[in-house]
Amino acid sequence: MTKIILAAAAALVSLGTVTQADELPTAAYLPVAKAVEAANAAVESCKAKGFAVTTAIVARSGETSVLIHGDGAGPHTNGSATGKAFTSASMGRPSGALAGGIASNPPLAGLRDMDPRLVILAGGLPIRINGQLVGGIGVGGAPSGDIDAECAIEGLKAIGAEVPE
Amino acid sequence: MTKIILAAAAALVSLGTVTQADELPTAAYLPVAKAVEAANAAVESCKAKGFAVTTAIVARSGETSVLIHGDGAGPHTNGSATGKAFTSASMGRPSGALAGGIASNPPLAGLRDMDPRLVILAGGLPIRINGQLVGGIGVGGAPSGDIDAECAIEGLKAIGAEVPE
Amino acid sequence: MTKIILAAAAALVSLGTVTQADELPTAAYLPVAKAVEAANAAVESCKAKGFAVTTAIVARSGETSVLIHGDGAGPHTNGSATGKAFTSASMGRPSGALAGGIASNPPLAGLRDMDPRLVILAGGLPIRINGQLVGGIGVGGAPSGDIDAECAIEGLKAIGAEVPE
Amino acid sequence: MTKIILAAAAALVSLGTVTQADELPTAAYLPVAKAVEAANAAVESCKAKGFAVTTAIVARSGETSVLIHGDGAGPHTNGSATGKAFTSASMGRPSGALAGGIASNPPLAGLRDMDPRLVILAGGLPIRINGQLVGGIGVGGAPSGDIDAECAIEGLKAIGAEVPE
Amino acid sequence: MTKIILAAAAALVSLGTVTQADELPTAAYLPVAKAVEAANAAVESCKAKGFAVTTAIVARSGETSVLIHGDGAGPHTNGSATGKAFTSASMGRPSGALAGGIASNPPLAGLRDMDPRLVILAGGLPIRINGQLVGGIGVGGAPSGDIDAECAIEGLKAIGAEVPE
Amino acid sequence: MTKIILAAAAALVSLGTVTQADELPTAAYLPVAKAVEAANAAVESCKAKGFAVTTAIVARSGETSVLIHGDGAGPHTNGSATGKAFTSASMGRPSGALAGGIASNPPLAGLRDMDPRLVILAGGLPIRINGQLVGGIGVGGAPSGDIDAECAIEGLKAIGAEVPE
Amino acid sequence: MTKIILAAAAALVSLGTVTQADELPTAAYLPVAKAVEAANAAVESCKAKGFAVTTAIVARSGETSVLIHGDGAGPHTNGSATGKAFTSASMGRPSGALAGGIASNPPLAGLRDMDPRLVILAGGLPIRINGQLVGGIGVGGAPSGDIDAECAIEGLKAIGAEVPE
Amino acid sequence: MTKIILAAAAALVSLGTVTQADELPTAAYLPVAKAVEAANAAVESCKAKGFAVTTAIVARSGETSVLIHGDGAGPHTNGSATGKAFTSASMGRPSGALAGGIASNPPLAGLRDMDPRLVILAGGLPIRINGQLVGGIGVGGAPSGDIDAECAIEGLKAIGAEVPE
Repeated sequence: MTKIILAAAAALVSLGTVTQADELPTAAYLPVAKAVEAANAAVESCKAKGFAVTTAIVARSGETSVLIHGDGAGPHTNGSATGKAFTSASMGRPSGALAGGIASNPPLAGLRDMDPRLVILAGGLPIRINGQLVGGIGVGGAPSGDIDAECAIEGLKAIGAEVPE
Repeated sequence: MTKIILAAAAALVSLGTVTQADELPTAAYLPVAKAVEAANAAVESCKAKGFAVTTAIVARSGETSVLIHGDGAGPHTNGSATGKAFTSASMGRPSGALAGGIASNPPLAGLRDMDPRLVILAGGLPIRINGQLVGGIGVGGAPSGDIDAECAIEGLKAIGAEVPE
Repeated sequence: MTKIILAAAAALVSLGTVTQADELPTAAYLPVAKAVEAANAAVESCKAKGFAVTTAIVARSGETSVLIHGDGAGPHTNGSATGKAFTSASMGRPSGALAGGIASNPPLAGLRDMDPRLVILAGGLPIRINGQLVGGIGVGGAPSGDIDAECAIEGLKAIGAEVPE
Repeated sequence: MTKIILAAAAALVSLGTVTQADELPTAAYLPVAKAVEAANAAVESCKAKGFAVTTAIVARSGETSVLIHGDGAGPHTNGSATGKAFTSASMGRPSGALAGGIASNPPLAGLRDMDPRLVILAGGLPIRINGQLVGGIGVGGAPSGDIDAECAIEGLKAIGAEVPE
Repeated sequence: MTKIILAAAAALVSLGTVTQADELPTAAYLPVAKAVEAANAAVESCKAKGFAVTTAIVARSGETSVLIHGDGAGPHTNGSATGKAFTSASMGRPSGALAGGIASNPPLAGLRDMDPRLVILAGGLPIRINGQLVGGIGVGGAPSGDIDAECAIEGLKAIGAEVPE
Repeated sequence: MTKIILAAAAALVSLGTVTQADELPTAAYLPVAKAVEAANAAVESCKAKGFAVTTAIVARSGETSVLIHGDGAGPHTNGSATGKAFTSASMGRPSGALAGGIASNPPLAGLRDMDPRLVILAGGLPIRINGQLVGGIGVGGAPSGDIDAECAIEGLKAIGAEVPE
Repeated sequence: MTKIILAAAAALVSLGTVTQADELPTAAYLPVAKAVEAANAAVESCKAKGFAVTTAIVARSGETSVLIHGDGAGPHTNGSATGKAFTSASMGRPSGALAGGIASNPPLAGLRDMDPRLVILAGGLPIRINGQLVGGIGVGGAPSGDIDAECAIEGLKAIGAEVPE
Repeated sequence: MTKIILAAAAALVSLGTVTQADELPTAAYLPVAKAVEAANAAVESCKAKGFAVTTAIVARSGETSVLIHGDGAGPHTNGSATGKAFTSASMGRPSGALAGGIASNPPLAGLRDMDPRLVILAGGLPIRINGQLVGGIGVGGAPSGDIDAECAIEGLKAIGAEVPE
């Protein structure tokens, strides 16, 4: 759909003289209201299971959009949630899948050093809506990364984002 | 004198069995639900004035409880909001008052170097409820720190916290 | 024009059921080809004046889009160019104007501590095209920040961006 | 007894109008006098075995409460003791058990990157008193992490904290 | 022209007693124009394959000469491209070969900790021209490090640099 | 006992040919037992005045020997106490005098940037015993740096160290 | 000998078609033997005046070439010497002159934030030999920056480098 | 001579009441002249083998005493040499032995995270003279850590320090 819009824009551009602006491409982003909604849903989902977690939403550009530190979650969870969310937002894949990939292919260990904001560990998922990657959600604090990821899925569902298989 | 106090404690302890827990002091904290409420109110308040801001809530212990990056706020506002909130949570004073204090008393400039998490600049306020300091709220992104502080006040009011004079 | 596109999108949305995606807002960004063009123009402009400089283009989201370190520029210029560009991209103002503002209003000194990526010093300018803030350009290495800013202006002109007064 | 206090608070709340403060939850914390006592005991215990160590006590919130660098301990022990204590305070488990868990499950290696304050290595233990997690103790400098942990246990015993199995 | 100047300097020096200048050794370096050319070629090469990448050129001294962040590349690619380029510039070898070396010889894992600027992962290649090591090129963002390296090779070819076997 | 060992070593050395050891110079250091004593005294002194502070003792070499975070002190006080202690340990002067020196001589502002461990602000004092500089004590958390310094003086007195005029 | 090799390379290149190599420009650099000589001279010069200092030599590219920490110098002097040397190597001016410039022109304060390696404070001088800027020398630890600079001058003289007025 | 002064001090102290000074323990340290000698020997030793390396000497307290960056060594060698030297100075063992220990016992991997100054990789050796641990020497830049260690041994021999088996 982005293509359609861009085509329309290109058509318009031919009519003007200052043509730079019309040529500017655009990217979709997740509005903060939805980010808060997703983060809250993930925190509540884990709380319902009996786990205190922190959830972060990171935009595709890498900046943190929302952080919610659930009551009783440890101080390391701000870093783990944000890092997992960054990983999925930037690499476009579940952070747990990346962790598994490194474990089975040791020369990939350097992936962990690419950017200090990365935390390659289960619990982070990309946020895609209608196929557009607009960020990542990360959860930290449950007894396992798989449970963290389950709560992250609830966050995705709350805003109608795609759930990775 | 510490020894004397400890000795007294030991005396008392001999009357019980495992009595340590009862002796543990407690501290009040702001539950995350209220922190989200305050942060949302501050972001919305500034948005109503036409300004895109980020708001952070930092616990008395210094860890970030909530961060909400309003749509359209610049990337530096995550740092400014969090830093102002940390400053007020840790020092128990409005960050703007501290900034003014340094300006009028240059030997205090070293306050800025005490901790890398500090941002001594208007826009941060301590969160006190019934006289208990439980954290700080910080807002960044409005055209001036005074406006940031006005929005922070709306955050405080939303949860019934004390508004500093 | 962004509004026009969004209106078209809204019209489409009424046809579907999963409506979140259609509602996603978009933001314009500077394509990297133009960023390289602007950076090269600024480096060449200063070179023509006899000065070796580095130029950086930073996106509105804060991430560096292009860095060109001119032959003979000192190693600190990577940091100065990137920092000035970040400052203007994030705050939407010329970095030199902000530096002057702090100098005349000391309680604003905390602006320097808001984010470690900031360099509040003449030589950075926001990149606006048709009124949309899409990033910042920063130049470092000339004998003064004013000359750095002159070269940055050449970078803006090369891509038809607005030149701040 | 903490429970009793909370019950009393709840009773009082029904009498008032400004109800926010009364609703504030509380958390137990380890008073610094006990933290010093535990740290000293751990350092002395290792010294008696012939080893120079550093011991740190980190609060549940992640901030360092006490650090005692034993005479003759290497400079890296400040970091190792603090990191092990942070790990156990934040994750609520012995740091050595976590280290073993990563070794036997490589996809967990990302745990090491969750927070720069973590040191996942034997020698750190959570501090629990009557079931309440109030922090962590970490010891560094003995010839092995197991010996570090033995000294940490002496620290726990000195203040009547629970000794993990 | 640099050579001509040096020759002139040498002529003058032979008349005098301050002889240090003619004793100064020299090192070849990659001019920035070629660095931009190589970086562009690598970005374009990957784009032609359908991948959005960032490319960095790092000088032999370790400082970044050029960074080009391709449209659509994730925010972590600035770090991965720069780190891979630094690795090859400083160690004079393909970063992928070093990654393989560590994987097959675990006591070498400490190589990753030698310098925070290192990213030991496929995608970085040394830049050698007529046998002189003048820097490194690094690419990040393709689905695998091998593809990143293929694009880096196109960057080397564009400026006539040696392609490692 | 250290002296006795050194004397014995000297006796042995005179018989041999490897003479390096007896040439090794020595430096006095503050034993940790005294460091704990000084830190406790400073914390207690401020507590008696009604102020919650953190006190740090830093060795002449720059490493932290003891940190005691008084109950109720803000999280920034770990940094302020340690930084002030480092400043006085490394520069051999009260940190407050250095702060005053910068204020009256602006070109000295760069002193603040010499080392990230420095906090040039009242509240730190050098620890000298019989004229030997063996470290620094720093206090943070009282309402003013002068009060912090008064408590630091109590720490010095507790171990018979010289009190700077 | 480097020259001879380059001449040979040029001869070979003229026979071929890949002509890039002979186009590579070169830059003079300070050999480490001279760097050690300069650093030693500066340390000894200050020692003769009764002051314990650290001296650093930083290459034009910003990397530290030599560091010598004189006996008895404080731990902050490694940072101050290296930072002053970096400042002069990168900016090509005495660090003290830059410090004075900022003091008399407050909007320049942002110069301090351009690069974390900068220490803009008297005691650093550029190293120029026959007009070529090849690095910087920095001294830290004397009672004033002017004395540090005097010792740095002795370092420059020891290797026949130009002494800035 | 230090001894003579201490003896005199002891004599004076016996007349007074302030007895702390004579109680101060002392620690041997490596004078910088020997540190320079050792570092030079290691650099020259590797140069004679045809390898460009950097050598660092780190004091027992962790601070860098000497750094010599050999002509032609890569920029990462400052970090590797310093890190290896720190490791051996702080832990009192060859860094290569520690690297081997981690490789054969994965739960020890956390050793790498104890302190950011550590580089656990062959090429670092403790400096012991007459059984006293006074620091570490680290070499980086040779084709293997074993060769780095051979050069480090030459540094130890040059000053009569013990060569670890």
